[in-house]
Amino acid sequence: MNKQVYAFGGGATRQGPRSRDKTIVGGKGANLAEMAGIGLPVPPGFTITTEQCVFYLAEGNDFSDSLKAEVAVALAHIEAAVGKSFGNPADPLLVSVRSGARVSMPGMMDTVLNLGLNHATVAGLAQTSGDPRFAWDSYRRFIQMYSDVVLGVDHHLFEGALEIVKENNGFYSDVEMEVQHWQALVKEYEEIVEAELGRPFPQDVHEQLWGAIRAVFDSWDADRAKVYRRLNNIPGDWGTAVNVQAMVFGNMGDTSATGVAFTRDPATGERAFYGEWLVNAQGEDVVAGIRTPQYLTKAARERAKAKPLSMEEAMPAAYGKLAAVFELLEKHYRDMQDIEFTVERGQLWMLQTRSGKRTAKAALKMAVDMVHEGLIDEKTAILRVDPMALDQLLHPTLDPQAPRDVLTLGLPASPGAASGAIVLDSDSAEKRSAMGEAVILVRVETSPEDIHGMHAAKGILTARGGMTSHAAVVARGMGRPCVSGASAVSIDLASRSLRIGNRELKEGDVITLDGASGEVMAGLVKTIEPELVGDFGVLMEWADRHRRMKVRTNAETPADCRTARQFGAEGVGLCRTEHMFFDAKRIASVRQMILAEDDDQRRAALAKLLPEQRADFHAIFEVMAGLPVTIRLLDPPLHEFLPHEDAEFEDLAEMIGVGAATLRRRANELHEFNPMLGHRGCRLGITFPEIYEMQARAIFEAACEVEAQHGEAVVPEVMIPLVATRKELEILKALVDRTAAAVFAEQGRTLAYQVGTMIELPRAALMAGKIAEVGEFFSFGTNDLTQTTLGVSRDDAARFLGAYVEKGIFPRDPFVSLDIEGVGQLVRLAAERGRSTRPDIKLGICGEHGGDPDSIAFCEEVRLDYVSASPFRVPIARLAAAQAILQK
Amino acid sequence: MNKQVYAFGGGATRQGPRSRDKTIVGGKGANLAEMAGIGLPVPPGFTITTEQCVFYLAEGNDFSDSLKAEVAVALAHIEAAVGKSFGNPADPLLVSVRSGARVSMPGMMDTVLNLGLNHATVAGLAQTSGDPRFAWDSYRRFIQMYSDVVLGVDHHLFEGALEIVKENNGFYSDVEMEVQHWQALVKEYEEIVEAELGRPFPQDVHEQLWGAIRAVFDSWDADRAKVYRRLNNIPGDWGTAVNVQAMVFGNMGDTSATGVAFTRDPATGERAFYGEWLVNAQGEDVVAGIRTPQYLTKAARERAKAKPLSMEEAMPAAYGKLAAVFELLEKHYRDMQDIEFTVERGQLWMLQTRSGKRTAKAALKMAVDMVHEGLIDEKTAILRVDPMALDQLLHPTLDPQAPRDVLTLGLPASPGAASGAIVLDSDSAEKRSAMGEAVILVRVETSPEDIHGMHAAKGILTARGGMTSHAAVVARGMGRPCVSGASAVSIDLASRSLRIGNRELKEGDVITLDGASGEVMAGLVKTIEPELVGDFGVLMEWADRHRRMKVRTNAETPADCRTARQFGAEGVGLCRTEHMFFDAKRIASVRQMILAEDDDQRRAALAKLLPEQRADFHAIFEVMAGLPVTIRLLDPPLHEFLPHEDAEFEDLAEMIGVGAATLRRRANELHEFNPMLGHRGCRLGITFPEIYEMQARAIFEAACEVEAQHGEAVVPEVMIPLVATRKELEILKALVDRTAAAVFAEQGRTLAYQVGTMIELPRAALMAGKIAEVGEFFSFGTNDLTQTTLGVSRDDAARFLGAYVEKGIFPRDPFVSLDIEGVGQLVRLAAERGRSTRPDIKLGICGEHGGDPDSIAFCEEVRLDYVSASPFRVPIARLAAAQAILQK
Repeated sequence: MNKQVYAFGGGATRQGPRSRDKTIVGGKGANLAEMAGIGLPVPPGFTITTEQCVFYLAEGNDFSDSLKAEVAVALAHIEAAVGKSFGNPADPLLVSVRSGARVSMPGMMDTVLNLGLNHATVAGLAQTSGDPRFAWDSYRRFIQMYSDVVLGVDHHLFEGALEIVKENNGFYSDVEMEVQHWQALVKEYEEIVEAELGRPFPQDVHEQLWGAIRAVFDSWDADRAKVYRRLNNIPGDWGTAVNVQAMVFGNMGDTSATGVAFTRDPATGERAFYGEWLVNAQGEDVVAGIRTPQYLTKAARERAKAKPLSMEEAMPAAYGKLAAVFELLEKHYRDMQDIEFTVERGQLWMLQTRSGKRTAKAALKMAVDMVHEGLIDEKTAILRVDPMALDQLLHPTLDPQAPRDVLTLGLPASPGAASGAIVLDSDSAEKRSAMGEAVILVRVETSPEDIHGMHAAKGILTARGGMTSHAAVVARGMGRPCVSGASAVSIDLASRSLRIGNRELKEGDVITLDGASGEVMAGLVKTIEPELVGDFGVLMEWADRHRRMKVRTNAETPADCRTARQFGAEGVGLCRTEHMFFDAKRIASVRQMILAEDDDQRRAALAKLLPEQRADFHAIFEVMAGLPVTIRLLDPPLHEFLPHEDAEFEDLAEMIGVGAATLRRRANELHEFNPMLGHRGCRLGITFPEIYEMQARAIFEAACEVEAQHGEAVVPEVMIPLVATRKELEILKALVDRTAAAVFAEQGRTLAYQVGTMIELPRAALMAGKIAEVGEFFSFGTNDLTQTTLGVSRDDAARFLGAYVEKGIFPRDPFVSLDIEGVGQLVRLAAERGRSTRPDIKLGICGEHGGDPDSIAFCEEVRLDYVSASPFRVPIARLAAAQAILQK
Repeated sequence: MNKQVYAFGGGATRQGPRSRDKTIVGGKGANLAEMAGIGLPVPPGFTITTEQCVFYLAEGNDFSDSLKAEVAVALAHIEAAVGKSFGNPADPLLVSVRSGARVSMPGMMDTVLNLGLNHATVAGLAQTSGDPRFAWDSYRRFIQMYSDVVLGVDHHLFEGALEIVKENNGFYSDVEMEVQHWQALVKEYEEIVEAELGRPFPQDVHEQLWGAIRAVFDSWDADRAKVYRRLNNIPGDWGTAVNVQAMVFGNMGDTSATGVAFTRDPATGERAFYGEWLVNAQGEDVVAGIRTPQYLTKAARERAKAKPLSMEEAMPAAYGKLAAVFELLEKHYRDMQDIEFTVERGQLWMLQTRSGKRTAKAALKMAVDMVHEGLIDEKTAILRVDPMALDQLLHPTLDPQAPRDVLTLGLPASPGAASGAIVLDSDSAEKRSAMGEAVILVRVETSPEDIHGMHAAKGILTARGGMTSHAAVVARGMGRPCVSGASAVSIDLASRSLRIGNRELKEGDVITLDGASGEVMAGLVKTIEPELVGDFGVLMEWADRHRRMKVRTNAETPADCRTARQFGAEGVGLCRTEHMFFDAKRIASVRQMILAEDDDQRRAALAKLLPEQRADFHAIFEVMAGLPVTIRLLDPPLHEFLPHEDAEFEDLAEMIGVGAATLRRRANELHEFNPMLGHRGCRLGITFPEIYEMQARAIFEAACEVEAQHGEAVVPEVMIPLVATRKELEILKALVDRTAAAVFAEQGRTLAYQVGTMIELPRAALMAGKIAEVGEFFSFGTNDLTQTTLGVSRDDAARFLGAYVEKGIFPRDPFVSLDIEGVGQLVRLAAERGRSTRPDIKLGICGEHGGDPDSIAFCEEVRLDYVSASPFRVPIARLAAAQAILQK
């Protein structure tokens, strides 16, 4: 078996690649080893591998003897490095124990600090530190933290006890607590633990250590961790590593401090140190949002008009060392770093570094800046921006001209703007959002229990916590706007209302957040479209230079086409003609067509629709001039167009002069048990050829008109939906060709055009070789192909899809990210077979997967010619297409 | 180009294999050449190939010069052989022109006789025959027939004119017409033609000939022919041949005759000559059912107590020759022959022979008899019986003990019994049958226009026509019971009623036909089950000896299991447990289970269902003891079990103590847009494991009970439906295994069992390799696999499937006969991949295709281990499985 424990820091010899492999030692462990390796001040420690976690969970939660032996050796290494012994009452070694998976993952056990304290060693710590108050404070912190995260005792019990002591003594803050108060509290804490668990708080330091290790491993399978993994597509079999490290103390008085920092601004991407720190505090005080932390730099403090001194001002020497470390780390990792540090009596210690989470805007700016700085190359820049994160940049922000009824100003914790109804807990947020309501989650502070509510909400507002509080970090990761630390907000859960200053709001009232400014506003505030210039434009240009696949859009209105073209669409990949049929002005003609008793009546109704459809296409063709436009002929079952309400039937009856009862009977006749698998798609074209004939005529007439008027036409690609056999396409291509010839003869001009088909049924994929003998292009309709291949109706999947993803039956929602293992086989096979009979066949994808980066990578793998995405996804697709080929 | 015209008879030299290839010269042409070749008396003639028909229809209905030249040569051959010339007024050659496709096909132009007559040649014929009356009768027959089938003049006009002449002269039958009457009628006929067409009846005999050839070719594309082809799965691109043959005359007085005959009884299979003849008549007089024909043999006449002499008695010499020809033909073709003959002034001529259509019973008896006679071997016998035809033998016949209210006795034209509502036209028959009503079509006589009505009807009753009338021949082919020539029946279409003797019946009244006895009875008569012994048993034994695949049944009641076991089922391939859930006694518990608010409530409802399900399985396992039984766990969406009517909701609300409004809301919540692709199959098992657990427990408890009681248990094969991923099966197999282990521990015994899956989704087929790592067997659910692969809902397909089959998009209804080209690919691939990871995996099919012979042949090709069919299809499957391997 491989080595399972790797030491770092304190002069540990540099070990093999496994010791810096995130998959083995987790991200935190790897980076600690890396930092120690490049000479940065890292407290000595060791990492237990993720493999041990997987082994532990699989084998019934037990530790092997070999692990125990390796841990003993590694512990001895720490003792030797710091000159203290674990459990030694005279000069005790204290350690921290932290989880550390391959990627940073909220929901797992975070940290136990000060481990190694008991009745005996607390005295030793008082002695060696010369600070009994510090020692007893540390011990009570340890009991509280360990009892909460390892022993499962409700932390409110401890907080309550502390509050009582403070009240009894008339203290306002912890700072006023003296050593005897901490000692009394420790006694109470120990009684709480014994009362809750029926056994005393463990005094054996080794029992403490193994208990903490066990808690880290167990936390991998905690519900919150599972939810996070599901939301973030993290496999359940990775496991977490455990990091055990000598304690350093930020709470040893005013020359001690602790902080978190980013080497660049994670919100804007600006090249400025960015962070928060607290004097005389331990790490959890910063991130927990209990004390409001101070700014790191003088500039930031001044910009915020804050009074408490920045670290740059208060501890210039330590700050200077920290700044040098930042520079070194960015050069070493060639990326923005998110670090944790502690200053113990003037001495800087690095506790963590990792690639920092950032907003899309920051990611973009950093990627472009770092290329200009020579830190990374263009390809690396392209690969560094998560295409999905671009979404944040492409959606509207608040209109600066719009009137704002500002309620208060909090911290601009995560950019973007959002409006929605106030909800005061995460379960409500989830429920109301599921009903289609836009909601803003308002909480005093968020915790990992709120992840599902934050995911469901359009934005998050918290009353407490800083820029690196739980709410801020998670919201940035999710791309949700967030205003944190808005201390004017006071929540009354009993009356389901909140007060902001002197304004009273109820749950359900609409507010607007501006995550970029920190403003909280009453009501709905007008938004404006984003501008696609600057860094965005530069990165897109680089992406376009590297990608092979074209990017088209799915659009059927001139407005959408215009948006998509601005976003860089190189054509329309899917224009759904049925959307045009729903237009209020023409629905009566559509209904007349459907209710026609014979072909002649149907043709009469179609004659009324022809000029309307021609006008639709004319408008689209003008916008897309010079580019290909793929138009799908009528696809959905006809009954979708029929009235549903009684009043609608009456109106229609009057309008077209047919009895309402007849209409209702006819509508009933058209009812289908499984409309998805019914009389739709090309089956309509086969049984009512006059419908497709009208549509083809409208297309060719419009194309001729546009060319005549502007000199530049589109290349119409007429797409036949739901084909299952060669013969269907043969019959309908002949109809389209006949119609084109007739129009060209009438108009005295000809145009290039193509006739092709959707591949959206398993049979079409299987028969692609035959079908390509007739069809000039294929467009993979992966929505329907997923439905039929998996036998899952998208509209009905909600009842089981959640459970399916949770149980790992599907790694992700197959309607969001292509089921490459299953549906992908059919796409690959159809591409191969189509090319075997028509080597130059044009292949594209127009299902919603065309805007999903993982699916786009697959499209590159099978070498499709283009992907087609909704207008706002076009830039995502452009970037993803470039990444797909660069990653190959 | 190949030779397109082949001469036969009259000393024509024997030509290449094309001249006897049915695909080239059609069935009729091939057999005429064959008969002439073995020395039988065949009037000389020639055949134009089917290739010329295809060419003619494709190339815009024109004839090539080379064809004209070949026809001229062939015509000269006839002239030389008979010593007459075509169009010669002195001694004219007359010919018949007949269509003749690869298989016999009603709906096409049948025959034109006496072609070559005109004003000039009719005189020559009068002269040479010495019988002017015959000559003029022949000419008027020719005008009538040619005008009807070639020129498209309504035949009623001619019939009306003839009736008037007869009335004016006080004649009762045609026999009373003298030469001058026929001459006068010819004049009238010619006037009718000129009035209808605006041009005279063609006098140029070559124009007559080419017109007839053209009519034969055109009739291939007549609507009736297309309908027949669709119903009988005959490809549209075969085309028909044309046979031109020297006329011989059965209407040259009392030493002339014409007849049709079978070498064995086509209804019973008995080895006795069987047929009908008419003295002094032409062929169409027999088949048209206008004159009631006479029996061929003395025995048949005596059995029928008929007076008109049999041919055996009236023309012993010609009959003797005919009997010798029968013997020769049976030895030559090694099959029962259906022949047409004419006696011209004592000389026997053979006009046609072909393998005779027969009832299933006759087919069976002949196949077995011919093996015993040494005429054919066992394999040939197996291949000779159409498996689908067995259906006729497996369905009930009238209970001889049941009281019968016999209305009249007609001819026993097609065996079997049927009850249904009287309908008087074919369109009504089709409509009412489509509504699910059993109907009996009652007509004076049927014509090719009635094919769709005969197909829709359960049985056919005609007032006129013999055993070889249109109604009789078609009904036998379709396997419909038919009573023909029931002359007591008189129909009044105006009042939509009929009179049988002195009984008055209205359309819609129920009658019963016994096609085996010719009885027509009022009301519904009780039926009895068929016995599966004698020839049937012998043939099944031969089939079992040769087949490789096992045959199981789809059944979920002990009664069905018993029937299937009697029919030879070797296990249950599909036991659909949901059918048990619909039972009235337990539906309340089922509904309670569905409406449960949590797992505990659901478990409580399931606890009530457990003993019921166990009892179901107990009963089935007793019947099937010793055999494998595949049980599919709950498959359909839960809402299928919910009430629909208001009253049902009220009842249920009262019964289970939940408000009706709540129930209605819950039922609405369970509504699905596409239930076929919804929350069903193993998705129920994943989300409500307690349901599958209950079912698994019921299965294993019942199996243990049966073994304990009888010492012989079944081998339960637990089948998980609608699997799309390996993981689903993994989770649910673990659940079944756990349940089995628990039951075995409780019962103190263990049983062999298997857990496997349906392959009924394209994804399952694609992932079969992975799925087979877990599943111990696959059963191809080709119903759902067809639905998802083609994207066609079986329940909604009616609206377009007809058009699809008609246009050749699907060769047949893919739910009846497997879409081998498309769905078949997935079956083949799944079989291969499944075997690649589990070489001994058991593979079967349980879709309805498991009872379809063509699909069974495919199953043999991919070497499935078994097919499973509904009980009455088990013998069909046994025979088809044997044929599949013999035909390979």
